[in-house]
Amino acid sequence: MVVRIPPESLLDRRTITRRRAGLALRPHPIDLGALRAQGLYNPAFQKKFLELHPPTLADNVCDLARLEDGLSRQHGLDNLTLDFFLLRKLAPVIRQDNFRVTATLDFAQRRSRKPRLVNIEPGDTCGRHFALAVDIGTTTVWAQLLDLANGQILGHAADYNGQLMYGDDVITRIVYGQKPEGLKTLQQAVVTTINKVIQGLLRRFKLPVEEISHLTLAANTTMTHLFYGIEPKYIRLTPYTPTACHVPPMRARDLGLELPEHVFIYSVSSVSSYVGGDIVSGVLASGIYKEPKLTLYIDIGTNGEIVIGNQEWLACAACSAGPAFEGGGIRSGMRAATGAIEEVSLNPETFEPMLLTIDMVKPKGICGSGLINLLAALLTEDLILPNGKFRDDLATPRLRQSEDGYEYVLAWAGETQSGQDLTISEVDIDNLMRAKGAMFAGYLTLLDSVGLKLQDIEQVILAGAFGSFINLENAIA
Amino acid sequence: MVVRIPPESLLDRRTITRRRAGLALRPHPIDLGALRAQGLYNPAFQKKFLELHPPTLADNVCDLARLEDGLSRQHGLDNLTLDFFLLRKLAPVIRQDNFRVTATLDFAQRRSRKPRLVNIEPGDTCGRHFALAVDIGTTTVWAQLLDLANGQILGHAADYNGQLMYGDDVITRIVYGQKPEGLKTLQQAVVTTINKVIQGLLRRFKLPVEEISHLTLAANTTMTHLFYGIEPKYIRLTPYTPTACHVPPMRARDLGLELPEHVFIYSVSSVSSYVGGDIVSGVLASGIYKEPKLTLYIDIGTNGEIVIGNQEWLACAACSAGPAFEGGGIRSGMRAATGAIEEVSLNPETFEPMLLTIDMVKPKGICGSGLINLLAALLTEDLILPNGKFRDDLATPRLRQSEDGYEYVLAWAGETQSGQDLTISEVDIDNLMRAKGAMFAGYLTLLDSVGLKLQDIEQVILAGAFGSFINLENAIA
Repeated sequence: MVVRIPPESLLDRRTITRRRAGLALRPHPIDLGALRAQGLYNPAFQKKFLELHPPTLADNVCDLARLEDGLSRQHGLDNLTLDFFLLRKLAPVIRQDNFRVTATLDFAQRRSRKPRLVNIEPGDTCGRHFALAVDIGTTTVWAQLLDLANGQILGHAADYNGQLMYGDDVITRIVYGQKPEGLKTLQQAVVTTINKVIQGLLRRFKLPVEEISHLTLAANTTMTHLFYGIEPKYIRLTPYTPTACHVPPMRARDLGLELPEHVFIYSVSSVSSYVGGDIVSGVLASGIYKEPKLTLYIDIGTNGEIVIGNQEWLACAACSAGPAFEGGGIRSGMRAATGAIEEVSLNPETFEPMLLTIDMVKPKGICGSGLINLLAALLTEDLILPNGKFRDDLATPRLRQSEDGYEYVLAWAGETQSGQDLTISEVDIDNLMRAKGAMFAGYLTLLDSVGLKLQDIEQVILAGAFGSFINLENAIA
Repeated sequence: MVVRIPPESLLDRRTITRRRAGLALRPHPIDLGALRAQGLYNPAFQKKFLELHPPTLADNVCDLARLEDGLSRQHGLDNLTLDFFLLRKLAPVIRQDNFRVTATLDFAQRRSRKPRLVNIEPGDTCGRHFALAVDIGTTTVWAQLLDLANGQILGHAADYNGQLMYGDDVITRIVYGQKPEGLKTLQQAVVTTINKVIQGLLRRFKLPVEEISHLTLAANTTMTHLFYGIEPKYIRLTPYTPTACHVPPMRARDLGLELPEHVFIYSVSSVSSYVGGDIVSGVLASGIYKEPKLTLYIDIGTNGEIVIGNQEWLACAACSAGPAFEGGGIRSGMRAATGAIEEVSLNPETFEPMLLTIDMVKPKGICGSGLINLLAALLTEDLILPNGKFRDDLATPRLRQSEDGYEYVLAWAGETQSGQDLTISEVDIDNLMRAKGAMFAGYLTLLDSVGLKLQDIEQVILAGAFGSFINLENAIA
């Protein structure tokens, strides 16, 4: 059995703040430059430079007709559709560099199959073309900044989903959405998070927001409904129908995103209430739908999704693991960001820990992969029993009684960023065990429903914010 | 030579407040009911009723897929495009009458040629389907309320264009638009007028605004640019290029119109800077483009447009007549609304006037057609000389000196709504003569440019707010 984490599944997930050498199993992202060299890089949004003739009394068609005529003659593009707001800036922009302009076109219009004229800029800007990809997780929002002109991923940023204060999982969020103004509150909360994440990313790369041409979105079905402000109520009630699995492209600004008028949002379609655009994009990017090998694809997160199948068939199950894998519901838990403990080893005699944090700074908390590594170490060194309880017969100041039962001190107050002890308690361990148990039950149930056993699986793919940092040895242990 | 005012050209123009018998030449509007009976009535927006199966665990596709499947199976409609905002209300609406819904579809999408799903309502609402048509004139905004289900024109309303305070004609408006915030001010001014006119119309027919499915717009090129907030500057500067002659359908609310989210605006395309969507819609509606007769089509208004041609060719000229024909620039001038004097005859001996007003109420002012009739009467009874000056040798208290030269008192203070004398001065007469002169010069120049003479014309069509009320005998005199 081969276990791999495909580079494709990490496109949305790597934390740019990590600078030191990665774990052995952490792969490199796709080399878009190589794809480009091989002629395989063909983004849905493209820029076209045009040199138009300035109007004369003998040729005084409107600016729009001049632009369309140029796209037809110089680039063979006809029957375009058009975003209205482009017309508001067309006259000054087309004249700014004497009728030399760059048009941005969208070739992704799924249903009309006509290129859509999205934006126009003065002069030749083909060398600068940027886009955003956003993954709205129940717990964490990730954004990625893409350089479409050069086929590069410039960087990532992430933050906790601002909806967290209204509920930990999709069910409590849906329930909150039924309150008066609840849906609006949730919609605005996640939009605020996305705005913050995007602004940080653009600031880091000193990129004016006007240079973004579009935004692609993947999320589970509930997160998609909440982001768009679409009624999620019936996802939760039998027979579990989403309002819409496909959302047409729409103006980002109409949803409250602080992006230019020409930016539309393209959302990956869902399959059903519990098989969302996130798992669809993962299956597409990992390519398991075209491989002969029987593959188990696991997207680990607050909502875990599991896909089994190959080029012939695919089956999917979803399970609610809770936020523990993303540091949620764990007292010292945090996202995989600077200061997060991600590797832990324990001295077998003194039970003193050795910690490695992201960016090698003072520890601030512990992230999901750190928790898995910690749990494995605690188990290996016999600090915890198989039921997840600490042994009470060990002579170390690291183990002590707390209000949550026994706890282990990972770092003393003097060593941490917060100036307080970093600990893991029996309650934390219990949350982690239940999360892992939920995922495990999920894939056993799915296997059973298709008449297969664990040993039939030829390949395992781990995706999700958690999968990208996991130490596989410890996770499987 | 036949002079006719085609019923089609009046669709946008008749004043609903006129109740008494019309002038002999005033035609009836198109009988849409008859068209419907003959199978010729086929509006671009249509409603389709659907009875869908409620979802079950065995059939729990999303609401949108259920709706699309129903449209495909029950009405043969596939490959629909979709307005996002429909999704926000889909879940509650589809359940309100147990999955019996009415979908509104737009079959007018010029470029994509796919029906667009515009709206959804609970139950069967096919019997109620309404739309608005709006004509933005430089001086006057007209709106018409259409009952698409029954093929009827329900009524009209009109008001002066709120942009009037920023300039009388398209040139002064364009100049105003170059000031800081000028374009925005003009855009908001006309939107405010349209909102007021529409609200009055809906209130009169007790129609909830949610039942409007779309709005169709015709206007000259400058008015179109100003309404959409598109730069009009280069319309005025050589070589006179509009920014756009075609504007894609766009959400009415995005322009400030107080209409539901599903209402889009469909604008009749212009030909050039001075041949706008108003003349295009007139040529289309009058059918002169498919008639063998050589026709002179005159759209009289602040901006006069003249078309000459037949099924083989069409040529067009535009001229600025000023607002006199719509009661502007005339001291007692007003729109053709309740209280406007529209017919005048003079006693040849006493020079006392006999007045007929719209709705037979006390006079409030005089409208364009009233002015033409008054002018003809003054000329016939020798009160004015061919140069437009009053004779100063007549013994009548109706003629007196004023600060604008001599003036004629149409109604004494005690007879008018305002309680002040209603008069016409030599300055008013001069404005009217110049307006008429501009139109006359326009069609002589156009005829000359195509090598024709006035006597070659086989048919004359008068359109415009003014054309609809004109007494042809007096106008030609």
